[in-house]
Amino acid sequence: MAYLDHAATTPMLAEALETYVAAARDVGNPSSLHAAGRNARRLVEESRERIAAALGARPSEVVFTSGGTESDNLAVKGIFWARRSASLNRNRVVASAVEHHAVLDAVDWLAAHEGAAVSTLPVDAAGRVAPDRLAEVLDRYRDEIAVVSVQWANNEVGTVQPIAALARIAADAGIPFHTDAVQAAGQIPVDFAASGAAALTVTGHKLGGPVGVGALLLGRDVACTPLLHGGGQERDVRSGTLDTAGVAAFAVAVEIAVKSQQEYATRVGTLRDDLVARVRRAVPDAILNGDPDLNGDPAARLPGNAHFSFPGCEGDALLLLLDAQGLSCSTGSACSAGVAQPSHVLLAMGADDDRARSSLRFTLGHTSTAADVDDLIAALPGAVERARRATAWKTPR
Amino acid sequence: MAYLDHAATTPMLAEALETYVAAARDVGNPSSLHAAGRNARRLVEESRERIAAALGARPSEVVFTSGGTESDNLAVKGIFWARRSASLNRNRVVASAVEHHAVLDAVDWLAAHEGAAVSTLPVDAAGRVAPDRLAEVLDRYRDEIAVVSVQWANNEVGTVQPIAALARIAADAGIPFHTDAVQAAGQIPVDFAASGAAALTVTGHKLGGPVGVGALLLGRDVACTPLLHGGGQERDVRSGTLDTAGVAAFAVAVEIAVKSQQEYATRVGTLRDDLVARVRRAVPDAILNGDPDLNGDPAARLPGNAHFSFPGCEGDALLLLLDAQGLSCSTGSACSAGVAQPSHVLLAMGADDDRARSSLRFTLGHTSTAADVDDLIAALPGAVERARRATAWKTPR
Repeated sequence: MAYLDHAATTPMLAEALETYVAAARDVGNPSSLHAAGRNARRLVEESRERIAAALGARPSEVVFTSGGTESDNLAVKGIFWARRSASLNRNRVVASAVEHHAVLDAVDWLAAHEGAAVSTLPVDAAGRVAPDRLAEVLDRYRDEIAVVSVQWANNEVGTVQPIAALARIAADAGIPFHTDAVQAAGQIPVDFAASGAAALTVTGHKLGGPVGVGALLLGRDVACTPLLHGGGQERDVRSGTLDTAGVAAFAVAVEIAVKSQQEYATRVGTLRDDLVARVRRAVPDAILNGDPDLNGDPAARLPGNAHFSFPGCEGDALLLLLDAQGLSCSTGSACSAGVAQPSHVLLAMGADDDRARSSLRFTLGHTSTAADVDDLIAALPGAVERARRATAWKTPR
Repeated sequence: MAYLDHAATTPMLAEALETYVAAARDVGNPSSLHAAGRNARRLVEESRERIAAALGARPSEVVFTSGGTESDNLAVKGIFWARRSASLNRNRVVASAVEHHAVLDAVDWLAAHEGAAVSTLPVDAAGRVAPDRLAEVLDRYRDEIAVVSVQWANNEVGTVQPIAALARIAADAGIPFHTDAVQAAGQIPVDFAASGAAALTVTGHKLGGPVGVGALLLGRDVACTPLLHGGGQERDVRSGTLDTAGVAAFAVAVEIAVKSQQEYATRVGTLRDDLVARVRRAVPDAILNGDPDLNGDPAARLPGNAHFSFPGCEGDALLLLLDAQGLSCSTGSACSAGVAQPSHVLLAMGADDDRARSSLRFTLGHTSTAADVDDLIAALPGAVERARRATAWKTPR
């Protein structure tokens, strides 16, 4: 059994789970005024401070949410609504072509439901946004733009964006810049203040914390309309009973992931480089997607990410053949209602449909070992061979 | 130490916590296609079936969310948006005056931000909506109404609404009826199909499950625009990585709470009746708020709820005096930024400001014992006496 899908979700750290259990055994709603409530509140606020310290934010900038999808939706829709309310002219959203669906689909909804105009930032063959392209859009539409959203690192191909440069361009134009750092936090250095971003999404289950807990780091002066109204628990930007145990476990995971990030990146990056080299030897015509710079440059590519196209294979078929041998990995594609869509990320990078459909993502993480890579390399050539035969049989045209 | 605030949050059941831990030790995103993902998916779907069976719903009607606040916001805003998109004339929301803030503030936002018209259903002195009042509103505005929302039971005074009658009136008019059953589930019988509601909110941490996990039960044919866009995990109505461990723990808690509901209601109802009788003896001028029918009629009042006004006291002061003696309870009021607001629920029931401000809620739950009531009765008269002196000193005008 080799789990090569850490970008989808990574095992919860033992320390995080222990923290969850200890906190869940105490009762208390952090909004309650009595001692049980105050104890829960203290744990929430300590957790907020730990997360803030680990990610270069102020505690008051940490807005707890149910995870990455909610944080992305809150940032994109909330900042859009707040800015457009203040000035009806600000009706445009700018996002890169390779955003996660939580951003892309939120943007699409704003276009369809709220009449928002959209500017999409193209990417190069490595999946990277050129800061000049953002500058061009801002020059053209400066007074119409409500919010800009560009992910810190891509969830499919692991390409790291030039966030500081992009955020500076947006800040110079006075436009709030949101970045989805779900894949970046714990993998490469992420510092909210240093990044210059106005809002940043992070989530627990990609870095060893629980699923269902995340945060939006949100500058104090960034107006943001709530998605969830009610008790007003989080700065009146987000309502809902705070999940004390989940928040505490999340904080432990963030702290450990950030503290061990450098060592992690070195170890996992080396494993990943080995994986890439051996995949290339085992399947010589495999094409590495994403940034080809694998030499541990944290500005280039996430250390745990390897993403290939295997010409002549269908990614889904290959995934299932590897799965049958105990290997867990992922296609780049989102599959909904049984219809596989080619990855919007690969298409934006210039791949054609066939290349996009033939791709597979291997992502390493904190439990990965050399044996996982050995297992993959042992199984891969045979699986590729079988997948090719299946594909050839299916498409004789 | 006596915890008398189970309506704010109740301790997680040992079985639910064990389930959480066991599931959290496995890795796997239920949206992944490999074996680890399929195992997670199986646990999610089994949990969905268990919750559906316990609450009289079909599995496909269970939409997992991050809890009560999200479910309420999703139902109110989502159904409003979907219905108004289909017919611009449907621009009105109907809700009772005693809804939780997650409904009320969502409605207020629709009015302020989306130009929605609002009809508020009044309540009687016990906090109950008369079905005739809903019928009147529907007669008057039938073609303009997008959604009706009336809670199953009130979180402050425990009054149970005539949900089946209200839902039938709405259904006869062809209007989707949402009910927030956060306080009702596990306390009194709750059956989604039998209720006739189109949508029903339930959450984990009020019935022995984890915080941060809940569901919206949503009829298959009820159109609802998503609040959170992205991967489309839950029927394309709600996106976000499913919290497998949380969902499994939630299902265990729902099942246990519903199975033991009758026995629970008898035991806790008896304790509560004892508490009420003894509070009245200890503080003869205390006024019981909510439905005076305490004889275990599940259509009248939640079994664990007691709610009093203590004339001449400030609720907050009394709460802190009791807290100093290890007793955890709650005021009816929501306190934000240090400014205590009199409860909108009590005001809607006809109480004046003074009575509303002098109130305190005691809520019993699955860990409550006779000793908790003894402790309260031992401390209460002295605390009331001191709170009265403090209040008299503060307001000599």
